[in-house]
Amino acid sequence: MRKRPWPLGEVYRLLEPGPVVLLTTARGGKANVMALSWQTMLDFEPPLVALVLGDRDWSYGLLRATRECAINVPTAELARAVVGAGNCSGRDVDKFARFGLTPAPASVVRAPLIAECCASLEARVVDARLARRYGLFVVEVVAAWADARAAHPRTLHHRGRGVFMVAGREIRLPSKMR
Amino acid sequence: MRKRPWPLGEVYRLLEPGPVVLLTTARGGKANVMALSWQTMLDFEPPLVALVLGDRDWSYGLLRATRECAINVPTAELARAVVGAGNCSGRDVDKFARFGLTPAPASVVRAPLIAECCASLEARVVDARLARRYGLFVVEVVAAWADARAAHPRTLHHRGRGVFMVAGREIRLPSKMR
Repeated sequence: MRKRPWPLGEVYRLLEPGPVVLLTTARGGKANVMALSWQTMLDFEPPLVALVLGDRDWSYGLLRATRECAINVPTAELARAVVGAGNCSGRDVDKFARFGLTPAPASVVRAPLIAECCASLEARVVDARLARRYGLFVVEVVAAWADARAAHPRTLHHRGRGVFMVAGREIRLPSKMR
Repeated sequence: MRKRPWPLGEVYRLLEPGPVVLLTTARGGKANVMALSWQTMLDFEPPLVALVLGDRDWSYGLLRATRECAINVPTAELARAVVGAGNCSGRDVDKFARFGLTPAPASVVRAPLIAECCASLEARVVDARLARRYGLFVVEVVAAWADARAAHPRTLHHRGRGVFMVAGREIRLPSKMR
């Protein structure tokens, strides 16, 4: 499905519900992808996101070195690829090829977008002060892309040990909150 | 429903799927509650959580001053209370009384637990270095409580502007991940 630009001020609507994301990084012409559940929005606009990686993750070194990544939001059809990507390392495996994920060029960063994901956010590291202690990187989303599914996506939400909650129905209540 | 102790090493299973939480704080015998979506796990055990508050939130000052809180996980039946708590300030309103939430004593911290929530985590601030810049507090969960609903809770996940995704079905895939 074709992705179109998504307003930066609405990026929080993609990440705030807590989906597992596929984080892509690239260095020296080689790209990697990891599954990541530990993320939160930090600010609306420009959109700032906190990403938490383990220092043994292959992507940790790539993110520290390149300070660029893409945050891709997978939907339920990609559950096998998400679990697969979470259970092996980019040190050993080309995860794109193994899990049938298609890298697509980003507009600003060198990390690829994942064509099959409903949304892809290009991001740059703006604060790595808590990287050593907690693996926490503050990134700023500099470009955002989403397809028609992103308005009501069937996202995956990890409950631990391979159990995922799939996004259910929506309810709407009167609210002044953003 | 009666809450029992929940293992600290399994706390991530409550927060990792990205639910809206109700954050309680207390000072001088007065308690407050706010709705908060911007949170992520930082470590499994001891469980560390990043909480992001706005510096205009009444709870921000309470958390900075007391360095204690409880993170309560509401389920879908509490949607009106969640939205209500998110749309007014503890400066003006006793939100417990207004939204029918019952404060219950915690075991370690002075902030109250919310009886109606399926899980309640007592937590202490361990790092406020990013509080001024991003409103981010690192807290350590020091006691955790959950009732029978917490294994498969119908949590609320904010999609912005009063739209909440209600946790849907679960799928399970073979995984070595925690």
